[in-house]
Amino acid sequence: MVKRLPKSFHCATEFTLFILGGKWKTVILCFLKERPCRYAELRKLLPKLSDKVLTERLHDLIDSGLVVRGRRGLGQAQEYRLTQRGRHLTGILRHLDAWGVENAPSFNVVVGTPLTDLDYERRRDGTGTRRA
Amino acid sequence: MVKRLPKSFHCATEFTLFILGGKWKTVILCFLKERPCRYAELRKLLPKLSDKVLTERLHDLIDSGLVVRGRRGLGQAQEYRLTQRGRHLTGILRHLDAWGVENAPSFNVVVGTPLTDLDYERRRDGTGTRRA
Repeated sequence: MVKRLPKSFHCATEFTLFILGGKWKTVILCFLKERPCRYAELRKLLPKLSDKVLTERLHDLIDSGLVVRGRRGLGQAQEYRLTQRGRHLTGILRHLDAWGVENAPSFNVVVGTPLTDLDYERRRDGTGTRRA
Repeated sequence: MVKRLPKSFHCATEFTLFILGGKWKTVILCFLKERPCRYAELRKLLPKLSDKVLTERLHDLIDSGLVVRGRRGLGQAQEYRLTQRGRHLTGILRHLDAWGVENAPSFNVVVGTPLTDLDYERRRDGTGTRRA
């Protein structure tokens, strides 16, 4: 369920976190900042999420005006991409991602790169990448 | 309740969000990145949180090793401050805050500056600021 955007927030960080909309929505946005993705791709990128939860989160992101679903052309598959409002978030999404990459070693944590891996597999298998 | 840090994450953003630990913990950390705060100050800075929830979130942040509670000297009040691990987060916390300040106008949203306001009131009332 999408909460209506209040007209004021007590502090700027609370506003930023409201717009990002929670953990899984933020992770979905982080993938979509790289390129548009089809539903089947998002399923692979987010193996922890059930179909039900992924579908709900995508509907919420569409309702918030951050993501749009559509085809790039006739005969193309449906895909999810950032709207102009969603692209407002690109800077902060890049920073969330970069902080994780940079700081994971100091926490003895390994972080994956599922979208890079997916595109690598595509190139290797000769099925082509779907860059935006 | 604090979740144990997994050894690996599917993507970097998921790791960053795990460390930040949810909305209210992130907002508390955003205040503490500016300066140590006493419990009574945090109560003023976070009027939406009940005593129970604020206390729980502070305990979680201490358990995660991001925040420590202590006195600066004999006769000084107890205050909460970032640990070295918590200071790892300063860059991302500043970015979350700056994004909110910069983008709120484009969403027709007003964001407050409660810590700045608190320190201004202190100076005005001549009770002194408690800068770190």
